[in-house]
Amino acid sequence: MSESTAAYTLENGLRELLDRHGSLLREALSALSTRVYWAAYEEDRDSYGPDAAARAADAFRGLLGQHFALDQPGEDGMVGPDPESGGETSPFGFPLRISYPHADPDVLLPAMVEAARPWAVLSPWLRAAVCAEILARINARSHEIALTATHTSGQGELMAFHAGAVHAQDRGLEAVAQVLGEQTRLPERVVWRKPTAAGEEVQVKEFTVVPREVGLVVAGRVVPAWSAYPGLFASLAAGSAVLVKPHPDAVLPLALTVRIARGVLREYGLCPDTVCLAPELPGEGLARDLALRPGVGVVDYTGSAPFGTWLEENVRPGTTVLASNGAVNSVLVDSTDDYRGMVANLAFTLALYSGRLCTAPQNLFVPERGIDTDEGHKDLSTLVTDLGAEVAVLLGRGGEAAELLGALPDAESVRAWEEAASGRMGEVLFTGPETTHPDHRGAAVRPPVAVLVAPGSPPLYREHPAPILFVVPVLSAEVALESVQDIALTSGSFVLGVHTAREGVEREAEAAARACGVGVSLNLTGSWLMTQSSVFSDLHGSGLNPASNFGGSRGVFATTRFSVTGVRRSVGSAEADQVVAADDVQELHP
Amino acid sequence: MSESTAAYTLENGLRELLDRHGSLLREALSALSTRVYWAAYEEDRDSYGPDAAARAADAFRGLLGQHFALDQPGEDGMVGPDPESGGETSPFGFPLRISYPHADPDVLLPAMVEAARPWAVLSPWLRAAVCAEILARINARSHEIALTATHTSGQGELMAFHAGAVHAQDRGLEAVAQVLGEQTRLPERVVWRKPTAAGEEVQVKEFTVVPREVGLVVAGRVVPAWSAYPGLFASLAAGSAVLVKPHPDAVLPLALTVRIARGVLREYGLCPDTVCLAPELPGEGLARDLALRPGVGVVDYTGSAPFGTWLEENVRPGTTVLASNGAVNSVLVDSTDDYRGMVANLAFTLALYSGRLCTAPQNLFVPERGIDTDEGHKDLSTLVTDLGAEVAVLLGRGGEAAELLGALPDAESVRAWEEAASGRMGEVLFTGPETTHPDHRGAAVRPPVAVLVAPGSPPLYREHPAPILFVVPVLSAEVALESVQDIALTSGSFVLGVHTAREGVEREAEAAARACGVGVSLNLTGSWLMTQSSVFSDLHGSGLNPASNFGGSRGVFATTRFSVTGVRRSVGSAEADQVVAADDVQELHP
Repeated sequence: MSESTAAYTLENGLRELLDRHGSLLREALSALSTRVYWAAYEEDRDSYGPDAAARAADAFRGLLGQHFALDQPGEDGMVGPDPESGGETSPFGFPLRISYPHADPDVLLPAMVEAARPWAVLSPWLRAAVCAEILARINARSHEIALTATHTSGQGELMAFHAGAVHAQDRGLEAVAQVLGEQTRLPERVVWRKPTAAGEEVQVKEFTVVPREVGLVVAGRVVPAWSAYPGLFASLAAGSAVLVKPHPDAVLPLALTVRIARGVLREYGLCPDTVCLAPELPGEGLARDLALRPGVGVVDYTGSAPFGTWLEENVRPGTTVLASNGAVNSVLVDSTDDYRGMVANLAFTLALYSGRLCTAPQNLFVPERGIDTDEGHKDLSTLVTDLGAEVAVLLGRGGEAAELLGALPDAESVRAWEEAASGRMGEVLFTGPETTHPDHRGAAVRPPVAVLVAPGSPPLYREHPAPILFVVPVLSAEVALESVQDIALTSGSFVLGVHTAREGVEREAEAAARACGVGVSLNLTGSWLMTQSSVFSDLHGSGLNPASNFGGSRGVFATTRFSVTGVRRSVGSAEADQVVAADDVQELHP
Repeated sequence: MSESTAAYTLENGLRELLDRHGSLLREALSALSTRVYWAAYEEDRDSYGPDAAARAADAFRGLLGQHFALDQPGEDGMVGPDPESGGETSPFGFPLRISYPHADPDVLLPAMVEAARPWAVLSPWLRAAVCAEILARINARSHEIALTATHTSGQGELMAFHAGAVHAQDRGLEAVAQVLGEQTRLPERVVWRKPTAAGEEVQVKEFTVVPREVGLVVAGRVVPAWSAYPGLFASLAAGSAVLVKPHPDAVLPLALTVRIARGVLREYGLCPDTVCLAPELPGEGLARDLALRPGVGVVDYTGSAPFGTWLEENVRPGTTVLASNGAVNSVLVDSTDDYRGMVANLAFTLALYSGRLCTAPQNLFVPERGIDTDEGHKDLSTLVTDLGAEVAVLLGRGGEAAELLGALPDAESVRAWEEAASGRMGEVLFTGPETTHPDHRGAAVRPPVAVLVAPGSPPLYREHPAPILFVVPVLSAEVALESVQDIALTSGSFVLGVHTAREGVEREAEAAARACGVGVSLNLTGSWLMTQSSVFSDLHGSGLNPASNFGGSRGVFATTRFSVTGVRRSVGSAEADQVVAADDVQELHP
């Protein structure tokens, strides 16, 4: 096959992908603009076929104890399968015994730079279509990917299917659409005519997207796919090669992702090395090494604040860091028109995934005089008692309880929980019922514990990796909001939950939230939780406090990944007319 | 007047401004999207009225020797009027003897933060309308402002009226439109309905723009208004207060700008301290001090690379630096279909404003075997001779010559020119005719000098602040393009001029330019010069080489100046219907 035939075949295959995914991409672009509810991937587990779960369980078992081949350049060793050599251990109490290929960055990165050349010159729509195909293949294996989330992060079943799979996929598509929207903002070609004394000055101008160098994604453990997919798919859609450096304890979900991406790229005649995985050996410090290398243009990071700060301070000039660091979120309960609904919503929020999400509330501010509700005045102790009782009901449903809570992933989380539960952080107000996992006796399943803490206490400013709720009695809502702002600006925060029946408090809460860059959830009493972010509608992160140095709300997330260069050429008026005529009949992208 | 009456009056005044400027803003938004030729402000000097120039000369004379009052908070001393105390000296040979109020940043910055509060909560359209009114008032005084550019930067008359006034105003409006477009991308309010098993989950969501803290503009001397207006008007439109720190030798154009802005703000009931000026005392290092202060969110910098790099490395986390540093631009002459047109265009480009623009070419690459043209083959020496002859013709027109060249601003520029003209940088190929200014004998007016330099020579990598052209004989166009890329990636570059009649060379030049992030001007032979940037159509800067760390092409320029926060509230379906109905009848912004 000659070179031009190969190019023709490639282009045709990609056009077919664009036919397949064009309308999905258009819908995504529309949702980004209207912000009405929209989702690309079905969140109902049963809709994936009657035997999807069983097949996924088989597939997952088939991965255990095996080498996870990726066929990447520069393989120079193996990560795992033993825990000592970097193998993962399920938080539900067993080693996965999977090994991954380790790659030499000196070989891998140059190969990726090379791989990105043909990728970078495709049109934004064709790149977006390839990304949509990768996401479609990932989506088809959502049950399997959910299991990999469960057995690396400790996510319970529901959380694993949502944050571990379909919602992460929505986040990936959202990133693709953001980049597509930004990259198609300028015309590819325009005829520019400036009237002059002599007649007109005419130029034909062309604008071309130039992607940044390799995108490095340094992923976290809590929600690996949900936090890594935006950076991965944004850099890929922008035209860069992407290297995923997974958390050492949560490699598998991203290894599967990378393998699927490489398969699609290969199938459509593109170079699979446009997407690679970089698992690390124990103590290797690979993220540090990779982030400083020439050839890395953008680093997407999710994890603890100190390394995020290190990255921001140490990367080379010209490398951009988009960091999602830790966060401490608050709830203010001021008053309510729906006491039962509020208590039920809060209890579920506390229990779900052991409060480990970056949007989970940790600090609950309540006026010390109690609150006015539709059921009359409730004093602080009544509210706490009712909340504890609701948690007990929720977790009293046997096996479901463990699925709701998930498993704590490590000794540090268990220690933090024990410190709180033992009363060493403050008076224990309630502890949820003891819960064990019916199938996995080794799993560290711990219920929420509520601890009484005075306003301004140091623990309120730290993120605790366990289901701990600090109950903070305050003089007034105003005092609470000052504290909320101070914590957000000091320690980082994504969201603020507010329950109030008073419009003045609503306004004050909104002003406080704007001032410290957190999103507000007001009076959530239904099935929606303050931890949840509706992809394509809600904004995650503002860049206005240390929780993140960018925001879903800031075009920076997409536009920092590429530039546009222009070429302009003097032409005569007649030649310009020909260009205009040619562009008028040219087939337009969807 | 009660507080609510005051707010009502304020809002009404601003609505009137929006009525006045709404269609201009819509046209600007449209031009940004289509990139066809469009300009807001008339560039024909004669269209400002028969006595505009004379009145401007009177107004300018009225400023000389006076104190320039600004009535800003924290005034603690005076800059100027003597050169020893920071007074400006015209490059045309006389001291301006103007003094400016110096302000204590400890007082000024907190006052500005306070001033920005009511400004930040206006709608993006109202802010844009105020900015458009400021620009309209500046535009009405274009002749006067052009004189301030001449007598601080050394710009000749034409350059001063264009880059010093009307094109700078277009750049300001372009920045306003960019920010307006980005800030209105999300709906102010939307009803979100998610189908659930129980019916639907309904939320009302509101999105609010949150501007960054104070915008600091650190301006340069070469084109103070042209380079400062984008940052000034972008930060102002975004909702921030803006502090302008002018170059110590070019205070006046920006002092007038700030005074006009403060007047408009005051007139419409806003706080004038939303825009302030910070002139500095000799040796004060005020830019360094201001850039590191808490409260500064974005720094727009134009000047030499070392300070740009210092800013990027030293500002506090959370402060963003947008730096336009020095640039070394190249021209490749490979072949041409219009030899006379090419030579004329190049000669004018070399002479205009002594080649001091950041887009002026310094390095001219020519194949050593000569070039093919519509007038037959021309060897290198013929091309150089013809170029020198054309420069001589251009500068042989008496007083016009000095107006075309402008005046070198300082001893450093004169030294650089003398080093080149004396042959110490390489063989002198031609020197334009000696030129003196008819009215200002003290002005340092110097014609272009062409120097023969070997490829790879160190002088090619330095920006020289004088009209020096290095002629570089190369083996081929390909070799030249490698050199162009290396210089751009090492020293920074905005544009590449190319003259070629060969399509292969066009393609190679375009690829080379993409790889190093420079814009290409192909075969310009008419009245348009490669130094010119058509505001609203051309992109200036790419962020892909050291000339700038951002690009007009990257949404980063606008979006880094603000964030958006969301508030979502659970509501019943009936309440949601009411919100939808209310939004349907609500008056929409233009």
